[in-house]
Amino acid sequence: MSLISVGTMAFDAIETPFGKTDQIIGGSATYVAYAASNFVQPIKQVSIVGFDFPKEEMDELTKRGVELDGVEVVADKKSFFWSGRYHMDMNTRDTLVTDLNVLLDFDPVLPESYQGAEFLMLGNLDPVIQKKVITQLKTRPKLIVMDTMNFWMEIAMPQLEETLKLVDVLMVNDSEARQLSAQFSLVKAAKEIMKMGPKYLIIKKGEHGALLFHGDQVFFAPALPLEAVFDPTGAGDTFAGGFMGHIARTRDISFENMKTAIIVGSAMASFCVEKFGPERLKEITQADIDERIQQFVSLVNFDIELTH
Amino acid sequence: MSLISVGTMAFDAIETPFGKTDQIIGGSATYVAYAASNFVQPIKQVSIVGFDFPKEEMDELTKRGVELDGVEVVADKKSFFWSGRYHMDMNTRDTLVTDLNVLLDFDPVLPESYQGAEFLMLGNLDPVIQKKVITQLKTRPKLIVMDTMNFWMEIAMPQLEETLKLVDVLMVNDSEARQLSAQFSLVKAAKEIMKMGPKYLIIKKGEHGALLFHGDQVFFAPALPLEAVFDPTGAGDTFAGGFMGHIARTRDISFENMKTAIIVGSAMASFCVEKFGPERLKEITQADIDERIQQFVSLVNFDIELTH
Repeated sequence: MSLISVGTMAFDAIETPFGKTDQIIGGSATYVAYAASNFVQPIKQVSIVGFDFPKEEMDELTKRGVELDGVEVVADKKSFFWSGRYHMDMNTRDTLVTDLNVLLDFDPVLPESYQGAEFLMLGNLDPVIQKKVITQLKTRPKLIVMDTMNFWMEIAMPQLEETLKLVDVLMVNDSEARQLSAQFSLVKAAKEIMKMGPKYLIIKKGEHGALLFHGDQVFFAPALPLEAVFDPTGAGDTFAGGFMGHIARTRDISFENMKTAIIVGSAMASFCVEKFGPERLKEITQADIDERIQQFVSLVNFDIELTH
Repeated sequence: MSLISVGTMAFDAIETPFGKTDQIIGGSATYVAYAASNFVQPIKQVSIVGFDFPKEEMDELTKRGVELDGVEVVADKKSFFWSGRYHMDMNTRDTLVTDLNVLLDFDPVLPESYQGAEFLMLGNLDPVIQKKVITQLKTRPKLIVMDTMNFWMEIAMPQLEETLKLVDVLMVNDSEARQLSAQFSLVKAAKEIMKMGPKYLIIKKGEHGALLFHGDQVFFAPALPLEAVFDPTGAGDTFAGGFMGHIARTRDISFENMKTAIIVGSAMASFCVEKFGPERLKEITQADIDERIQQFVSLVNFDIELTH
């Protein structure tokens, strides 16, 4: 039940209406690892960092069953750095700084020990790099899940279309789904996107939950109503990590099991937003996760009998 | 299992990105009646119309078990008229015309035959009028549900607060909940509003579903993902009608049954938006409703086992 996770390991500096951090640990693959490692180990990490990425953070990941053979350390460059400021509604943010640093050199070579992995999570990256990872695998994984963003739709659409043909599940947010499909209705958008390659589409709507589409089937998972969203950074990646972790643990790629995986992902994301960065994800126990998942059951569970 | 429904019966003229109507039938009590009458009859209607309100519409309502003894007909005035234009996202609209007409004289006197009703639905109206209806009832209904809007928060907040003390369930949309409570978080907003009187709060979020709060409990019902929302006019009132209809049919005011009622309300609202005005609500059969409710079951139903 091995999982390869490809993405960034980085530093973030975050401002929200509730507070402000100095440089803290971030990056899509970091969040995926902290979420997924609750469900499946090892996680075969593929990323790139600079000389400044802390050894304690690497040790912490190793302790959680994250293999770092696929993480390149560049001795003379700094790690990727992103800084942003969230608005009051927490659904929109301004990017203040993007220092690509080592990311400019990212051209991952999969270690031989990563071959044969059954599950592949492609974090948001240049679609050319995402494709390179897929084509390096001698045996196609049982399930390939991919995240992307509007940036690649704007500057690398032909490359994105090539990569989309190779994946099973695409995860995007609602505005990205609209942009990718040129459809306003998310139902119509899903139909268009599923013609581009992915047989499954997950549309993340932040505080408004997530939708899973497959053929004519649709499933909806709410976000947990929270008193305060402290910092949404990484929530989407944490969702992906919980989703992939559950799928890899159960090795069941049916639509039914993907529904459960979305609930697991939503539960993990609900922890992520409670503190800055991945801080909260480092604290939680299996009991916390089980309790949170039960809250989702209560949140949507209802009895129905026919109504007349 | 009698239900009193108080609200407007009116004319609307609607523009959406998909089309435009001339004057068609509208009004909160009209939508409530078309939705609720699928589940419970009679519905004891309280409203006011002008000389121009069509006899065929009255006959149609009568046929569906709507009692009109409480509907005042003013011989020398026109019915309430509202005209609006929806934006592309269908969540926002501009009011083009509001002709209050007979609504200026609305001072309902409950017919003696309405006494003893077990359920009361107060559509969005001046809170003073809502209170007058409550105080005319010699026996307090088992459940009083009230809708309101931001307009009354702005011009009649003390009166609104008085009426809120007398009701069991308040239904508002998300921006109204924020305005009423001065809280941005809907969880915090719910706590504040439940201190003002209502023991239950339903927050309608349009295409993003609806939340039910009661004490520390919370339930979420999604909206059905639709290819096209043709006209959202009346969706909130139709939701209220489905909710009240289910409650009045089952005579069960438990939190558990309110969850089911919210699903019924959401199903009815999903029909409402498919055509202009109440047109679609007039067409649907019990079989259509059952099928739609099953779609909601599929939409949110998932299997969970503990995740490790």
